[in-house]
Amino acid sequence: MDEFSLINAISQHYYKQSSLLKGIGDDAAVFRQTVKDIVTSVDTFVEGVHFSKQTMSPFYIGYRSLAANISDVAAMGASPAMYLVSIVIPTTWKENDIRDIFKGMHQLANCYGLDLVGGDTVSGENLVISVTVIGYVPKGKARYRHSAKRGDIVFVTGTLGDSQAGLHLLLTDKHVKDKDFFIKRHQMPQPKIDFAKGIQSLARVTLNDISDGLANEAIEIAEASQVNITLIDQYIPFSDALSQFSSSLRRKWVYYGGEDFELLGTVAPRDWNHVKSIAKKTGTSITQIGYVEKQSTCVGQVFLKTNQQKWRLYKEGYIHLK
Amino acid sequence: MDEFSLINAISQHYYKQSSLLKGIGDDAAVFRQTVKDIVTSVDTFVEGVHFSKQTMSPFYIGYRSLAANISDVAAMGASPAMYLVSIVIPTTWKENDIRDIFKGMHQLANCYGLDLVGGDTVSGENLVISVTVIGYVPKGKARYRHSAKRGDIVFVTGTLGDSQAGLHLLLTDKHVKDKDFFIKRHQMPQPKIDFAKGIQSLARVTLNDISDGLANEAIEIAEASQVNITLIDQYIPFSDALSQFSSSLRRKWVYYGGEDFELLGTVAPRDWNHVKSIAKKTGTSITQIGYVEKQSTCVGQVFLKTNQQKWRLYKEGYIHLK
Repeated sequence: MDEFSLINAISQHYYKQSSLLKGIGDDAAVFRQTVKDIVTSVDTFVEGVHFSKQTMSPFYIGYRSLAANISDVAAMGASPAMYLVSIVIPTTWKENDIRDIFKGMHQLANCYGLDLVGGDTVSGENLVISVTVIGYVPKGKARYRHSAKRGDIVFVTGTLGDSQAGLHLLLTDKHVKDKDFFIKRHQMPQPKIDFAKGIQSLARVTLNDISDGLANEAIEIAEASQVNITLIDQYIPFSDALSQFSSSLRRKWVYYGGEDFELLGTVAPRDWNHVKSIAKKTGTSITQIGYVEKQSTCVGQVFLKTNQQKWRLYKEGYIHLK
Repeated sequence: MDEFSLINAISQHYYKQSSLLKGIGDDAAVFRQTVKDIVTSVDTFVEGVHFSKQTMSPFYIGYRSLAANISDVAAMGASPAMYLVSIVIPTTWKENDIRDIFKGMHQLANCYGLDLVGGDTVSGENLVISVTVIGYVPKGKARYRHSAKRGDIVFVTGTLGDSQAGLHLLLTDKHVKDKDFFIKRHQMPQPKIDFAKGIQSLARVTLNDISDGLANEAIEIAEASQVNITLIDQYIPFSDALSQFSSSLRRKWVYYGGEDFELLGTVAPRDWNHVKSIAKKTGTSITQIGYVEKQSTCVGQVFLKTNQQKWRLYKEGYIHLK
C-alpha cells in the first residue's frame, strides 16, 4: 500500500474548525484556543481483542473507534474538535478496507464537526487503531468524576446492555426480536455530545461515560468523589427487547458489559429538573437510577438495591451485603 | 499484567506544566493555553518494524519513541508540554520491560518538562507504541515547511547518517571505531528543542526534522514552498568516524537513512548570523548545506551538487541530471 496515496485519500480538502491553523501536511497540526479549556484523550483498538472482521466491517471499525473517543469528550462535558489517527496495517488488509475504516470515522466526524488533523500509518502484523481526540469546553466547566456530592441524584442516559447483546448476537448468530437494533447499538454507538453540551450552564455535574459497564463507572465516581453510591436495580433502564434474554445475561450486560457509551452522572437534586429538560431538548432519554448516600463512613463504595436486599458492587462482580 | 497497577506505576505524582488542569485519572486530560498556539502530532512504533529487542532495550524503545515525537515539536519551532501514550502489550512482554519503556520516556520527558497526561494500555500480539505529543509555540510562530523563499540559506543541525550507522552496527555486530557513539546516536537521539526555541524571535524560518533522510525532508520543503533547493555534497556534515564506512554506505545513510532527528531549515541570508549565534548559545552545531535557488521555473525539486555535476534527488533515490 502506498502511504502517500492513502494520506492524500483520507486528508480533508477543507477544515471545519476555525481554531485550526494547520491540519495534515507538516510535522504537527497547529491550533489556537484562547477562549476555552482543552481536553484530550487516546483510545486504542486491536483486531482480535476489541473487534474482528466477524463482528465488524471496516466502516464500523472506524466509526466505533472514533465514537469511543468522542464519548470520552462528552464525559468531560466538552465538544470534540479534532482527532489524530495512528493505524498499524497488516499486509493482509486491502487499501479499500483501510479507506472504509476512515470513511466510518469521517461519517461520525462530520456529524460533530471534527477535523482529522494528523496521523501515522505503519505496517505491522495486526490491525491497531489508536485515536487521539481533542475537544473544547468552556473554561472551568470540564466535568470531573471527583465532583459528586452527598445527596446527589445519580442518572444515566439511554438504555444499558444493548451493545453487549449485539455482540452476543453477532458471535452466536442467534435470531431474536429486534436483532438489528442490538447490532446497530454495538456497531454504531452514539456519543451523548448534544446532551453534555446542553448542560454546560450547570455549575456542577459529574459525568463518566459507560465504556466498562455501569458498575465500574459508578465505582470510579464513588472512589474519585469519596462518596458511596446506591443504585436501584428496578430503575436501571434497558430496552424492551432485552427482556427476551435471561435475567442473568441481562444483568451481566447491564452492570458489567459496557461499551454502551451512555453517560452516567450525578447532580444536585435542585438541578435535576434542568437536566431532564435539557435531555428532552436534545432528544436524550434519561433516568434517575440511584443516589449518592447522604451519610457514609467508609467511602468509595457502590451498592445495588434489589427487592429489599442490598448488594455491594465490585469491579469484578457483586456480592450480597445485607 | 494488571492494568491498574501499571497505570499507577507510570502515573506522575505531580505535574510540571502549569497549563495542565487535569492529568491522568479522568475520561480525558484538561489544559488551558490562552497565550500560545498549540501543536500536536502522533507517531507509532511497531516491534519488528521500527525496532527489535536485538537493537533496542525497552528503556531505549521508550526513550526513542518520545524523542521522535519531540523532534516533530522542535520542527514546528515549539516547546513540548505533554504527551499521551497508547501501548499494545503482548503477553510475552514482562511488566518490568513495560515499566522500562516508560522509564525511558520519563527520562527524556523530564529533560524538557513534559507531563504524561493520558494513555491506554491494551493487549495484543505485537508491541505497538503510539505517542501523541502536545507542544506550545508563541502565537504565529509555528515553523512551517511551506515558508522557504528564493535565495534562502539551507542549513542543518548536527551530523547526518550516524543513526543508520548505529543501526547497521547493532545488526551486524561489526567492530569499528567509535561504535558506542553511533549506537547512542541511534538509541538516544537528541531532539533540537533548545535551538528551535532559541530562534523563536525570528520572523521567518522554515524547519523540518530529519526523520526520513535529508533528501526526503528537503523535497518536502521544496514542494510545500514551491521552490527548488540545491544541496552541496561537500558541505553536508557527517561525523569524522563515519569516514571509515564506504562512500556508498555513507551517502545512503546521509541522504536516505533518516532517524537522525536533526533539523533541516531555510532562512533569509540576513538572518543567518543570528541563527548561527543562537546555535552557538544552545550548543548546537549548525552548517549551511545549500541554498534555495533564486530563479526556477519548474519548482518542487531538490538537486545535489557534487564535483561539477548536478544530480536531482528523488524520494526513492537520485539520478544524474546535468
